[in-house]
Amino acid sequence: MKVGRALFADNSIGWYATDDGISFLSWAPDTGSVSEVVEIARMLAPVQPSKIVAVGLNYRDHARELSQELPREPLLFLKPSSSIIGPDDTIIYPSCSSRVDYEAELAVVISRTCSHVRKDQAREYILGYTCFNDVTARDLQIADGQWTRAKSFDTFSPIGPWIVTDVHNPHALTISSRLNGEIRQLSSTEDLIFGVFDLVEFISSVMTLYPGDVIATGTPSGIGPMNRGDEITIEIEGIGALRNTVK
Amino acid sequence: MKVGRALFADNSIGWYATDDGISFLSWAPDTGSVSEVVEIARMLAPVQPSKIVAVGLNYRDHARELSQELPREPLLFLKPSSSIIGPDDTIIYPSCSSRVDYEAELAVVISRTCSHVRKDQAREYILGYTCFNDVTARDLQIADGQWTRAKSFDTFSPIGPWIVTDVHNPHALTISSRLNGEIRQLSSTEDLIFGVFDLVEFISSVMTLYPGDVIATGTPSGIGPMNRGDEITIEIEGIGALRNTVK
Repeated sequence: MKVGRALFADNSIGWYATDDGISFLSWAPDTGSVSEVVEIARMLAPVQPSKIVAVGLNYRDHARELSQELPREPLLFLKPSSSIIGPDDTIIYPSCSSRVDYEAELAVVISRTCSHVRKDQAREYILGYTCFNDVTARDLQIADGQWTRAKSFDTFSPIGPWIVTDVHNPHALTISSRLNGEIRQLSSTEDLIFGVFDLVEFISSVMTLYPGDVIATGTPSGIGPMNRGDEITIEIEGIGALRNTVK
Repeated sequence: MKVGRALFADNSIGWYATDDGISFLSWAPDTGSVSEVVEIARMLAPVQPSKIVAVGLNYRDHARELSQELPREPLLFLKPSSSIIGPDDTIIYPSCSSRVDYEAELAVVISRTCSHVRKDQAREYILGYTCFNDVTARDLQIADGQWTRAKSFDTFSPIGPWIVTDVHNPHALTISSRLNGEIRQLSSTEDLIFGVFDLVEFISSVMTLYPGDVIATGTPSGIGPMNRGDEITIEIEGIGALRNTVK
């Protein structure tokens, strides 16, 4: 099943569920129950997290691309919830940067408040999976050393289009990014250094995770710059495609 | 005036206002109006921010202490809201660290949603000021390079005791930390490299700030470790004292 948030045709905002991506029912996140048919005017970001916990250098091919050793532990950073945008929203190129990159990532959405979750129980705390673009002002990332500013600009966290709740194996999904239709990243989540359940264990040993919190699991090789006017699409097998334009 | 959040004697949680820190009235953050007398059972963290934006290396004496050049721009990092605790709450020493430091900081609390605020208008978006302890697992900070994990553990963001709304000049306040009663940090906010209004301008040019969001403005020299059983008190002139113990 796919669940997410949308502006409905009656101008209300709410949750929907869909199996085929064509017909939609309203959905109650607390109970998981579906009710009446809804008509979608515009897809919104499928979550409003209290935090986005992201992981650096988590694909073997990306670590090689950067000539970095494989990390022994996940390298964490945070992106603020103010940076989130939804499908088809516009990424705003900041005037203080001259290189803004796409980064295709598999995002994990947390279902329940949790802390110190064991890896073998992590699945119980995951609502589902979606596509994430960890937009990064590469020049500022290098200049600052700390990655926060470079990754925190408003519009720098496109997410969506929806959360898929029944992904059987999150470690065997083709993940890609296409810039203006041309493939730029093409990999599989089987190349993840730290898998989804490892990350839930590691991150929840540091900080309590709340419903809707997002773990962005890192990006494969092939990162590169976007320019104003570009269209960037992150696609993950069995999940969907997240398309945004740059202005 | 001082405003904050508390558990009241009738077991409800809400906002209060006080002038003298002795008698308390209930307070409505939306309108700023006060009403009936309330009895406080326990002080809580005075805000529940969507994000904590913190600044590294922002006191001249601290930059000298670390033999670092003065930064040309504020160096930002984020702490998650899940790390917040209130006055008299307990800082939990993580088992994966063997050095956990206190860092006394002046915190700015945002009053209204804002973006791209000009320095000369920043005051209009500030609700007030409070004390903040940017607790840091120093060993993990060094090991990771990125500061996120080291600063994001649950209980690593003590804040309070309340927000003072009528600080005339935030750049002339004595700030101190005392470990088990002994002074460890003693400085003045006049030593800040980037002042409060500069920071509101800089940070809001990157990310939208929401009501209750916190800017932790950096720590002066004298940082050092805490041990289990210690008591740490951050005090700022005209604001108050934030006391926590370590377990």
